[in-house]
This record gives sequence, C-alpha cells and structure tokens, in this order.
Amino acid sequence: MEVCSDRRVAASLALEGLEALKRARPLIHHITNDVVTNFTANVTLCLGAAPVMAPSVEESAEMAAMAGCLLLNIGTISPIQLDSMLAAGRSANERGVPVVLDPVGAGATALRSSAVFRLMESVRISVLRGNAGEVLQCAGAGGRVRGVDSAELGEPDRRIFDELAGATGAVVAVTGAVDYVTDGHAAFEIPFGHPLMGRVTGTGCGATAAVACFAALGGRLVERTAGALAAYGAAGSIAARRAEGPGTFVPFFLDALASLDETGFEA
Amino acid sequence: MEVCSDRRVAASLALEGLEALKRARPLIHHITNDVVTNFTANVTLCLGAAPVMAPSVEESAEMAAMAGCLLLNIGTISPIQLDSMLAAGRSANERGVPVVLDPVGAGATALRSSAVFRLMESVRISVLRGNAGEVLQCAGAGGRVRGVDSAELGEPDRRIFDELAGATGAVVAVTGAVDYVTDGHAAFEIPFGHPLMGRVTGTGCGATAAVACFAALGGRLVERTAGALAAYGAAGSIAARRAEGPGTFVPFFLDALASLDETGFEA
Amino acid sequence: MEVCSDRRVAASLALEGLEALKRARPLIHHITNDVVTNFTANVTLCLGAAPVMAPSVEESAEMAAMAGCLLLNIGTISPIQLDSMLAAGRSANERGVPVVLDPVGAGATALRSSAVFRLMESVRISVLRGNAGEVLQCAGAGGRVRGVDSAELGEPDRRIFDELAGATGAVVAVTGAVDYVTDGHAAFEIPFGHPLMGRVTGTGCGATAAVACFAALGGRLVERTAGALAAYGAAGSIAARRAEGPGTFVPFFLDALASLDETGFEA
Repeated sequence: MEVCSDRRVAASLALEGLEALKRARPLIHHITNDVVTNFTANVTLCLGAAPVMAPSVEESAEMAAMAGCLLLNIGTISPIQLDSMLAAGRSANERGVPVVLDPVGAGATALRSSAVFRLMESVRISVLRGNAGEVLQCAGAGGRVRGVDSAELGEPDRRIFDELAGATGAVVAVTGAVDYVTDGHAAFEIPFGHPLMGRVTGTGCGATAAVACFAALGGRLVERTAGALAAYGAAGSIAARRAEGPGTFVPFFLDALASLDETGFEA
Repeated sequence: MEVCSDRRVAASLALEGLEALKRARPLIHHITNDVVTNFTANVTLCLGAAPVMAPSVEESAEMAAMAGCLLLNIGTISPIQLDSMLAAGRSANERGVPVVLDPVGAGATALRSSAVFRLMESVRISVLRGNAGEVLQCAGAGGRVRGVDSAELGEPDRRIFDELAGATGAVVAVTGAVDYVTDGHAAFEIPFGHPLMGRVTGTGCGATAAVACFAALGGRLVERTAGALAAYGAAGSIAARRAEGPGTFVPFFLDALASLDETGFEA
Repeated sequence: MEVCSDRRVAASLALEGLEALKRARPLIHHITNDVVTNFTANVTLCLGAAPVMAPSVEESAEMAAMAGCLLLNIGTISPIQLDSMLAAGRSANERGVPVVLDPVGAGATALRSSAVFRLMESVRISVLRGNAGEVLQCAGAGGRVRGVDSAELGEPDRRIFDELAGATGAVVAVTGAVDYVTDGHAAFEIPFGHPLMGRVTGTGCGATAAVACFAALGGRLVERTAGALAAYGAAGSIAARRAEGPGTFVPFFLDALASLDETGFEA
C-alpha cells in the first residue's frame, strides 16, 4: 500500500476540516470514560463542534440519532454502559451517523476484550482509534503485544492494520510517535505531536474526540481522520513549546486547538 | 414588570454575597453531571463555600438534610440518579434547604423532559437556572425553540419567564449574553460575562453552582441569584482579559472568582 | 513513640521514591470518586507511575491482581461501587498488592461509615490516608470531632492514630498543616505543603494517589508514605509560589510534581 507521509497534505486536510467544523458545528455524542469527560468535551468545543454526553441507555440511542457523530470509549466500561453503547451504536448505524470507537485497554481484562468484540460485532464502526497494542488486540493479534504502551510500528503491524480496515470497513487509526491511518486502500503517516502528550491523562481519548468531530463532516473518512490527527498533533507541538510540564500543557493545548491555523503546521 | 439593569446594584449584590459566603462557608450538596464535577466543586470552593457530592440514593437525602443548599443538574441523568435527586429534593424541602435546578438539555430527549417534569412536580424548586431554550422547555413553551443555543431574549420570552416564576414560586434565571433573573415580582438584568465562556464546557453548570452558593445564604432569593450571576460574570470578564483561549481561561477564571472584589465590577 | 520531624529525612525519602518510580513505572489501579478522576490520574502520571481506573465489579478484581497498588477512595461511594472495591481489595490481598484507603467524608453519612467499616473488616489495608476527622472516625473515636475540617493535631489524637496503626497493621497517614504518618512503631511529621491546597478540590485525594504510587515500590511502608507526602507537599509549596489563586495552582502543581528534585525541598 502506498502511504502518504507528506506533511503538507496532512496539514491541508487538517485546515480544511477545521474550517468546515466552524461552519457546521456538528453535535458529537460521547459515551466515554469517567476520567476524560471534561477534557474531551473541551477538545470538542475547541475544534468548533458541540459535545453532548447522554450516557444512560434510556436516552443514548435517541441522542445518537440526532448527532453528527457518535463516539464510544470503553475506558471505564461496565455491562450497563456497554448496553447503552450498543443501543446508541445501532441507532447511529440506522441513521447513517458515523461511529468512532476507542478501545481503551482492550485486552487488559476479559470485560474489555468482550466489550470490544461485542461492539465490533453489533455496530458498524466508522473509525477505530487506539494505540498499537489496543488495535492489535482488536485485530485478534493480541498475543503479540504486552500492555498498552507500544514501540515504533514495524511493517508487519501495518499490514495487520490495513487488513483490519479491509475486513471491517472501518478506518483504522493507530496513534504513537508517528500516527498511522489506513482504510485498507489508502494510508497516511501523521508526523506531528509531542512526547509530552504521553504524560497527560486522556490525550489519546482526546485524539479520538478530534477524529469524531472530523468524521461528522462527511467526505472521505480516511482523509478526515488523518486531518483530525494532524490538527491534534500540531496543537500538541505548539502547547509543548510553551508548557513547562504536563500541568501547564493542558490549558495551552486547548488554546492551541481553538486557534489553530496554517502557522501551526510550519516545521 | 420593572427590570433593574443597574450595574452598580448587581455589583453590590455580588459583593455582599461574597462577603457573607466567606463568613458562613455553607455546605453545598451537588448531584450533578459527570462532565463538570471537578469544575463546579472548584467554583464552589473559590466562592468560599464547601462542596460535597453524595450521588447515591443511599445517602443523598441524608446529606441534603445537613446542607446549606442542594444543587440538582440533569446533564447526565439516569433513572437511578433521578431517584436520588427526588429523595434529596424532598429531604431538602422538609428541612427548608433551598433547591437549585439546572435543566441541562431539557427537551432534547424524552428522558430529560420527563426528569425535569418529575423534579418540578415533586420538589419545590427555589431557583431554576438555564439558558433560554432550556427554561422555555420547563415552561412548556418548548415548541418555540430549537436546540439549546439561544439568541438574545425578546419581550415575549421574558413574560414567559416571569409567569413561570409566578406559577412555580421559583426564581427563574436565564443566562445568555445578558442574564435575566425574575421572581415574577422583581427582575434583574445582569450585563457581565464574556463570549469566551460559551466556548468552555461547564460554564453554565458553574453559574448554577454559584447560584447555589448564594442561595445558601438566605435573604431575598431573586437578589441572591442576581448577585451570584453578577459575580460569576465579572470573574469571566476578568479571566477573558488574561486568557489566550478557552484553555487558559479556566485557571484564570477560578483565580478571579476566588479573589473577586469591587475592582472586578468597574467598566 | 519517637517522631522523626527532620525535613532532610523526609526529603530524602521523597527523592528516593521519585527515582524508583521513574524506573519501575508501577500500574496504580484507582477505584475513586467522580470528582477527582482526572486530577488523580494526572498526579499518578506526573510521579512516573501509570494510572488505570477499572471501576466495574466485572473487572476490578482482575485489574487489581495485575496492579502495583490498589487505591480505594469512597468520595462518591454507592453500594455497587463498594462491592467492586471489596472484590478488588480481596484480589489485591491474595496477590500481596498493597491497598491504600481514602475514607473521604467518613462519619458524614451512614453509608460512608458502613462502607469504611466493611472495607476495613474485609480487606487488609496497607495505608489509611485521611484528614484528622476522617481518620478519627475510622478509629471509632468519631464522637470527638465535627465535620471534616480539623485543627492542629494534639497529643491525644496522635496516640489514637498510633493505636489504630497498631491494631490494624496499616500505616496511618493524617494530613493537615503538618502531616503525621505512623505505623505504631515509628512516626514522621511532614512539614511541607501550603494552605492554598485546601482551596482546591481533590488535593487530599491526590495525596492518597501519591501514597499509592510510593506504596507500589515495596520497602518499608511508613517511610514510603512519609516520602510520598513530603514530595506532594513540596510540589504544593513550589506551585503556591507561582500561582495567583486556586485555579492557576493546579497546572503549576502538576508541573512541579513532574519535575521535582532536591531543590524543591530547600527551605
């Protein structure tokens, strides 16, 4: 597969999406973990979209039906929350609302593995966003990895991601030092971002929120996902230049996301 | 109805309340949504009051009975949480503890609409704080609005709010570019605040927390509510002058709330 | 009992632990309250450990078995969450994983008192960290205190804490203007910290997270706990010098925790 690793292409996908978000202001329905609710709602707002969280099964499907995108994040999953995700996911599928899945900690416990399995079996996923370990678990290649921290991606891993995209119809987005985004036909390498992001809780979940915002815009999903991760990573680099540590990183990062323009992608 | 829109009156209501909070340090019991727990607890602390969150139905009524004010926020409502709110609300009513309701997203789903209906039917609400769309829904005038973002309030809307206050006995506080606070007999326009507040998650919920702190002080509720929103808006203006975006706004806003004095209300 | 109140001893325990955490990067499993999830996850990351939150009873015991330490915090306890804590606590005990308990608001309601009682009865607690009022409640001496704010500790209180440590086998850590840490045989006074920490939500819960990180290192628990509180307090003092209020305190505090070295303990 040919992989586009041109920074200018990624930057232009990011900028086009940011423009479109400011016009469209799509509603993004998050069913997510308890740790990142506030941060990912703010990521969504900073990108120009409107976050809503309707976790209860009694309303999650109704809310999903009126959303521009549904985000499912299993970081603090329970059987009750899984039922709500399944209901919302089916509702989104019926209405053609894209569904973005973040398989946080997939493979770490039986509950998480079975939750991911049931979600991928019952709901048509538009984008799967995780780190390499989590996504390999989703591909059933989990025996090869330990834990959730991943080293640089090698060629064999990338083929697994391409095949997972082909088999499921989902865009597969694997984030790390360099992000890899594939739909099985086209792929992007996204070189932005900063190591400090790994020292702040929820930065992975926030990347998924950015992907959900861009996915709500319609268009070619693999490009939207690449654009979202490029925007997210560029804001991270800007914030890292100003921050003195993981604490000050967060406010600077949200500011950078909210004001991101072409200057943010210059080397 | 005569509407007081004198900035100096609002400022003096704010400053009087802030003084009193530092002396009384009332306990504010929040049953609230998952997104804003940390932020609204910090708003409460910055104003000089003591936050507590006891969400479980097994203790919410007991905690409400010993609180200075009970805050109910339906932003991530579930049937189980609604039961806890009803128990806490009845307990507060029995003890004369004021109850402040934030009908987040009222009208957006059947669950939210029925939750608001049951709360208003079963619990005597002291102050209802929402944006125009949410409060119109509470007034049964929901057919006239779409979504939760509201344009400037017109005269017809204000009459609905005055009537809702008269019918329910609650102070009705509608926040927006200019806030409107009415008890059906007297009304205030609160002109403070800043557009940046609309780009940060939970700023509406935080305004409700400020109202709950001021409501715990006793005295005339419509004035307490006006004072709370004036203090909250003034802190927002101070923070907006220093912030470079929605991320840095939050820490500067909490600092401004915690140190607010008469200089914060100068034009 | 002889009490060590030498700042240099506390500082060296802190620095030794920080070094060891950067090498070991232990997994800390938090089952905690809704208000502080994000903050305490970031405290854990800033200290060099890896936070995970697996609240559901369907996975909490499995996650506890693979953790370096289990943290239990009852700040928003429910019967369902208590069941999960009990399962995780027993699993940790079986594997020799230390368990750190934060009895937030013990004594405030019947639910909290019975939760603390059941946890201390069913799970072998390694470290109990609370303020004086909470810990006195755990010692069954609750009739002597009101609420959760505590004045300076007197000699009689300290004897109760020493006896509680002796009776339970847990290190008892009582935080306040000066922290007191005892295992019934040796005790430490930790003089770092800053009053501004009392005006930010979750700083007590964050101290417990720091203790959990240090407890995961093994070694002598009373020293690890003293080192954790010294590190936490020193970071608080650094942040307080830079902060303009409780809002800016938080990012500066996390930065200080993440970069703490010997200069942070100079007077």
